[in-house]
Amino acid sequence: AVDARRLLGRIRELGAIGRDGEGRLTRLAASDTDKQGRDLFVGWLRQAGLDVAIDRIGNIFGIWQSAGNAGKAPLLIGSHIDTVIDAGIYDGCYGVLAGLEVIETLKASGLSPSRPLAVAAFTNEEGVRFSPDMMGSLVHAGGVDVEAALAAVGTDGGTLGQELARIGYAGEREPGFLKPHIYVELHIEQGPVLEREGIPIGAVETLQGISWQRITLDGVANHAGTTPMSMRRDAGYAAARVVTFLHDRAAASNAPTVATVGTMRLEPNAINVIPSRAVFTVDLRDPDEQRLQAEEAALAAFLQRLAVEGIAVTVERLARFEPVVFDGRVVELIETAARKRGLVSRRMTSGAGHDAQMIARIAPAAMIFVPSAGGISHSPREHTEDAELVAGANILLDVITELAEL
Amino acid sequence: AVDARRLLGRIRELGAIGRDGEGRLTRLAASDTDKQGRDLFVGWLRQAGLDVAIDRIGNIFGIWQSAGNAGKAPLLIGSHIDTVIDAGIYDGCYGVLAGLEVIETLKASGLSPSRPLAVAAFTNEEGVRFSPDMMGSLVHAGGVDVEAALAAVGTDGGTLGQELARIGYAGEREPGFLKPHIYVELHIEQGPVLEREGIPIGAVETLQGISWQRITLDGVANHAGTTPMSMRRDAGYAAARVVTFLHDRAAASNAPTVATVGTMRLEPNAINVIPSRAVFTVDLRDPDEQRLQAEEAALAAFLQRLAVEGIAVTVERLARFEPVVFDGRVVELIETAARKRGLVSRRMTSGAGHDAQMIARIAPAAMIFVPSAGGISHSPREHTEDAELVAGANILLDVITELAEL
Ligand SMILES: NC(=O)NCCC(=O)O
Ligand SMILES: NC(=O)NCCC(=O)O
Repeated sequence: AVDARRLLGRIRELGAIGRDGEGRLTRLAASDTDKQGRDLFVGWLRQAGLDVAIDRIGNIFGIWQSAGNAGKAPLLIGSHIDTVIDAGIYDGCYGVLAGLEVIETLKASGLSPSRPLAVAAFTNEEGVRFSPDMMGSLVHAGGVDVEAALAAVGTDGGTLGQELARIGYAGEREPGFLKPHIYVELHIEQGPVLEREGIPIGAVETLQGISWQRITLDGVANHAGTTPMSMRRDAGYAAARVVTFLHDRAAASNAPTVATVGTMRLEPNAINVIPSRAVFTVDLRDPDEQRLQAEEAALAAFLQRLAVEGIAVTVERLARFEPVVFDGRVVELIETAARKRGLVSRRMTSGAGHDAQMIARIAPAAMIFVPSAGGISHSPREHTEDAELVAGANILLDVITELAEL
Repeated sequence: AVDARRLLGRIRELGAIGRDGEGRLTRLAASDTDKQGRDLFVGWLRQAGLDVAIDRIGNIFGIWQSAGNAGKAPLLIGSHIDTVIDAGIYDGCYGVLAGLEVIETLKASGLSPSRPLAVAAFTNEEGVRFSPDMMGSLVHAGGVDVEAALAAVGTDGGTLGQELARIGYAGEREPGFLKPHIYVELHIEQGPVLEREGIPIGAVETLQGISWQRITLDGVANHAGTTPMSMRRDAGYAAARVVTFLHDRAAASNAPTVATVGTMRLEPNAINVIPSRAVFTVDLRDPDEQRLQAEEAALAAFLQRLAVEGIAVTVERLARFEPVVFDGRVVELIETAARKRGLVSRRMTSGAGHDAQMIARIAPAAMIFVPSAGGISHSPREHTEDAELVAGANILLDVITELAEL
């Protein structure tokens, strides 16, 4: 079994980094606080006697290899340690630190695995500062050119490349240098299913499609007091109509489609000026690719209506990932490991995007989920019980042990 | 007649101050650029040989008095030189500079008026940085305590008092020290009526009521991908419903009610996080006080519905002014002056708030309007033809000449 105290202690220690004056946890990708988190993690990798490698997109790898297995494709465990704004402490960090924990536990056992074992912390999984999300693992999987990814412009101006260089995490290894034999990711569910059903372990077999767009609506600024309602071209009102259209359509549907407008900015943003411009993001998801395309088409048609009414519409794609089916054999290994520990598991789909979704392009992959209290994530109220965290880490240990052919 | 070249030149010179890197004009109240504009104006007052007085709320007065009329209540001409964000050059500045122009013209004529003449630039008329709008004239009229006004917190943090001290315009005179005999304000219409009807002069007899509120909606942050639509408490969606409710209600009404949401801020404002909080402003106006109250009540009822759905609602009043009826004799003087110059005029209501609305509490007051091209204001596209600006200034000259009993 893993060292529960060490694992939980590290989750808390990393979770303390990046608190602002009000105690809000924010470690956006390639920020100063991300650097502090990375430094802490790299220190733990070195303490554990692992080889540390950093690639050009800032992905961090801790590798345990021996003379006997060097050169073989490794078993890779990964996730991320960047966070959203005002985040919880588990999203991503749990999987990375459990990966390290599993490797340390196996290393201490004196046994020697048939393949190298490695843990990865992928850059910018959250996608809050730089789009798309899962960027480090996407680059690792060859899904986007590293130069293009480094040129991504953040919400606060600079490029990812500049920011990684600034915090000292623009590594030298070529992305993808480490091609996994198999990839496993442990994560909190971030949704309500496991808790509602009282099930401790999720064996994730699919992951829904994700569509991110940034939409800019241009109307005409004018005086809030003198301009008759009939003469307005109010970009803020047009944006509000898009928000309610998307929400009401998804809510009325029988499908599991979800639609979110998480960001909004008005110009000039003055109390007595009709907004000339609204800039906002749309996050659309669906487990079914056909349906996701239909939702995107419905949005495009609605925007077309606004254009006819005199609102200029600009659409930028920020991310687009099709639904993913994970490797059935790895999913079965997870189910078997749970059964052997006397834990109930269920197959499920992931509502969130994950690095596993990208690595699945280049290696058999699957994910293990543990419950999220109240289904809450991307929030300081994100919580999973210690016992559930430890149980999940032990399932990861068992799956890796099985794959490592000790 | 006034010196058209001097007047137009000054309007342009003042309008060049406060341009940002992109050429956008922004001189928010008590900002660095407002200081530059004030310095330029005070320089012109001194050049014209006027006594300069600045009161504790930063209102600037240029006073022409003589041994013969000192001590008598002055004829006051006023408006403001602060602007909104990304503003035009006429709103406010035109009236102030025309006031100075009229006084200089009369001073040069060698005649001596029976009362002092004064021009005022009132602090923070726009209300964009500090609420309420028309703050300097409101304090001058005794409508709010000067200490309370100085304590107003700006959209960027500091108080008006701190900011006035910082820019050197926290004057020593007690607000209200100068009680006008009669107040006249010249302004661009900022709306479409005069242009549409081809009428050069508006004699403003009423001004509609203004209701400003800041609304904070609190929901629950959660993951955009994992949270079913039915389990959301999305503060951004709730805010969008308020925006469409207000707009659609005002647009569907037969009354001239206008409703605007000009500012909006979401928290945490991240692409894949359901907004936990939305903060936005509501600007409601109506020439009829009963109807304005009914609109406020409809908004309150709608917010109550959101509260029942689990969204916490906080409402702050930022400004509330009842409709104003200007002094009939002054309105008639304006009509008469226009007729004498062979210009068509019409009586009208003002859609915008103005300092005249505040000063009307302590003195007979009225306003002169000139056309706004396309009815556009609070926008860089704000425009009035030179000839129309000069015509308006000459009507102001004639009205003041009449009142001054030269
Ligand atoms: N797991 C997770 O929260 N990933 C961030 C990308 C997403 O929005 O799904
Ligand atoms: N005239 C003018 O634009 N005043 C600003 C206050 C308002 O919003 O009406």
